[in-house]
Amino acid sequence: MKQILFFIFLSFSFKLTAQPDDSLQIRKIYSAALTKGKAYGWLDYLCNNIGGRITGSPQAAAAVDYVKKELDQLQLNKVWKQEVMVPNWIRGEKEVAWIEQGGKNIPLNICALGGSIGTPTGGLKANVIEVNNFEELKNLGREKVSGKIIFINHPMNPESINTFSAYGEAGTYRYDGAVKAAQLGAAGVVVRSLNLSLDDFPHTGAMGYNDSTPKIPACAISTNDANKLSAALKQNKSIYLYFKTSCRKEKDVLSYNVIGEIKGTEFPDEIVLVGGHLDSWDLAQGAHDDGAGVVQSMEVLNIFKTLNIQPKRTIRCVAFMDEESTWTGPVLYAKMAKQESAKHIAAIESDAGGFSPRGFSFKGDTLKCLTVMKWKKLFTQYGLSDWDFGYGGSDINQLEDQGTLLIGFEPDSQRYFDYHHSANDTFDKVNRRELELGAASMAALTWMLSEYGVK
Amino acid sequence: MKQILFFIFLSFSFKLTAQPDDSLQIRKIYSAALTKGKAYGWLDYLCNNIGGRITGSPQAAAAVDYVKKELDQLQLNKVWKQEVMVPNWIRGEKEVAWIEQGGKNIPLNICALGGSIGTPTGGLKANVIEVNNFEELKNLGREKVSGKIIFINHPMNPESINTFSAYGEAGTYRYDGAVKAAQLGAAGVVVRSLNLSLDDFPHTGAMGYNDSTPKIPACAISTNDANKLSAALKQNKSIYLYFKTSCRKEKDVLSYNVIGEIKGTEFPDEIVLVGGHLDSWDLAQGAHDDGAGVVQSMEVLNIFKTLNIQPKRTIRCVAFMDEESTWTGPVLYAKMAKQESAKHIAAIESDAGGFSPRGFSFKGDTLKCLTVMKWKKLFTQYGLSDWDFGYGGSDINQLEDQGTLLIGFEPDSQRYFDYHHSANDTFDKVNRRELELGAASMAALTWMLSEYGVK
Repeated sequence: MKQILFFIFLSFSFKLTAQPDDSLQIRKIYSAALTKGKAYGWLDYLCNNIGGRITGSPQAAAAVDYVKKELDQLQLNKVWKQEVMVPNWIRGEKEVAWIEQGGKNIPLNICALGGSIGTPTGGLKANVIEVNNFEELKNLGREKVSGKIIFINHPMNPESINTFSAYGEAGTYRYDGAVKAAQLGAAGVVVRSLNLSLDDFPHTGAMGYNDSTPKIPACAISTNDANKLSAALKQNKSIYLYFKTSCRKEKDVLSYNVIGEIKGTEFPDEIVLVGGHLDSWDLAQGAHDDGAGVVQSMEVLNIFKTLNIQPKRTIRCVAFMDEESTWTGPVLYAKMAKQESAKHIAAIESDAGGFSPRGFSFKGDTLKCLTVMKWKKLFTQYGLSDWDFGYGGSDINQLEDQGTLLIGFEPDSQRYFDYHHSANDTFDKVNRRELELGAASMAALTWMLSEYGVK
Repeated sequence: MKQILFFIFLSFSFKLTAQPDDSLQIRKIYSAALTKGKAYGWLDYLCNNIGGRITGSPQAAAAVDYVKKELDQLQLNKVWKQEVMVPNWIRGEKEVAWIEQGGKNIPLNICALGGSIGTPTGGLKANVIEVNNFEELKNLGREKVSGKIIFINHPMNPESINTFSAYGEAGTYRYDGAVKAAQLGAAGVVVRSLNLSLDDFPHTGAMGYNDSTPKIPACAISTNDANKLSAALKQNKSIYLYFKTSCRKEKDVLSYNVIGEIKGTEFPDEIVLVGGHLDSWDLAQGAHDDGAGVVQSMEVLNIFKTLNIQPKRTIRCVAFMDEESTWTGPVLYAKMAKQESAKHIAAIESDAGGFSPRGFSFKGDTLKCLTVMKWKKLFTQYGLSDWDFGYGGSDINQLEDQGTLLIGFEPDSQRYFDYHHSANDTFDKVNRRELELGAASMAALTWMLSEYGVK
């Protein structure tokens, strides 16, 4: 009797855990990605034929059409667009900036931060005060700050091994710098670019205002020129900085999340989502951020079709619109998901670049996380050794209150901030194999989730 | 009594295993590499001021002087050069090749393989036969092969996750192709470049002859042009291929291994070696192969000096001369090591590129390997999750019969063969942080080895 019970237990637990065949299926998925993948070609088109896809732009609209068309060609069960009104911030003319020093104008590489107001038409000229952080700013007080340009020269911490930790810490100066400076009467703010390299690219990115503080123009300065400005200020504290930006916010624009799915054969009402965001900043091609994530998510469906895998659960790819500014697309998608009868059991996001895979990061119910993290041993031979509790992704995190297991795909992070939000984020910075291995990693985990669900 | 024995055992085992302070020391080592490192500047000089450093060349000589000078400046206990006679193979004029097709000459990107004889002065023109492997070649037989140019179009396997496995498998066609083709009477051999990308760079590398077979000229063709040639042959099997190379071997030249060391305070006669090879191929700057390994090894000493670490065991950095051709430098170094009273307890080699660290590979006595592999948990937070039995490195492997524990530093392998042995292996392909993290990883393991030895 005991023996029979033991076998019943064994056969039951066998169904809930990974099977020997899983490793064969995963091997097939990697081979398909590395030999029959479409991701690299898709990314080429998104970057080189369409380019930067800021929300509200003609490029973003072209990208929506392109992704829809390509998903249509995969012969999925369903492909559709979800309407969403998105912000329409326009950079305007190329920004100009210089230091006035000894009768000469020394040019600086700057760019307006996303969402910023522009300077007056003639530009903004004022003395500059350099601070490293908000405490230094506060200690200066209103009298010293009033009418000045505040230069926040806070470098990303090079000692952080994971560069996203350094980004998280330094990012507050980009987002909140204008408000904190304006609270003390500053006329403008210049923030050191969030870049661990020394180069001439200014890095844009979202910044915020609030209703109780005057709006002042905010821009980012390249790391080389942040050092140059800092050195000039050490020589002479009374130099003038001039900058001119003509960015502005226009009326919201109709845009779309683009969605494609393969229906599950056994549990069609359980959805495994894979996604990235289709919008990018305007300065570059949005190759690593996040063209890579979009084409990898599309590739997951392509691999399933190529290998003729009929998943037990529904697999859905979402190219989200508006991750960079106000998350209108992801928020609206989550709202729709809540109204569906189907449940999003898990969601995987790729939004950390098309680099060599390192692992996955999990957020959600601890037991669910642990169930999936047990599959790690199937993935270590593919370089995916880091499976930790952590973060899902800006887009999929909107599904958090629906009990969805959130999974962030984690590629190597060392090069990401060299490119992120700058004109340097171009197709040639993406390595084909690294991109494909990422897509394969996502497809393999998607396959496991579709086979076993999340208990 | 039992309790006392237990405490004696405890205090003994405590000394043999990692301490809590180790993680603090390792953290300091990473911080020093990421904020005070010299590796990137050194590599810049080696690549951009000196360039390709093929054995016997003026560049190799300049690199020896430069490394010696920089090691001298670190104020080590000892810096010296070890004399070694090295091969002096000279490429000569830039190679020329074309397909004669329909009265037109279609140019091809080729380069002579290292060690090859040149073609006759007027070049070599013959019909071409394409084979994928040596079995196909053998099946053709002498009658079909005689007088022809054999085109070995064997791609590296894209399905290998670790690209070095694919290199190992395909590498035999580059090294042995000329002999196998000449055994059947071929006039020359053209080998598909060992590159997983499709591009226009031919990749050189060592090839071999033997005494019982006529020497025929051997060259590599870019992956794009291998595909072009293959397509042309599918159209018309009787097209002619022309190529002209003027490479030749000249008399051996005096060169040097460059060596620097910090003497151990407690066990000066136990040496931990860190090394890479200073020679490169001539086509490029030898940035990833293996300028990176040399400057990372130098950086290990620099970090010890910067942090004022006085190691218990002797730390020795070796910039080996002649890894690429005939290992004269590494062989002579091992001979000298055998004659020293000091013993090389462990050797770490970096010769897989300056990419993001992934782990270490161990070769030697199993128990010694396992002792060191237990330290893995100190390193996983730095991205070093892959600690496996495997391979040391071409240079340090010469120490194998002295009982030295051989350790290969393993960075991410995905991009390496895009650059390896081609004009594409330039300084700009190396990411500063990735290079520094590699140096830190080697320094941290060197520190553990110097503290605890290898039991």
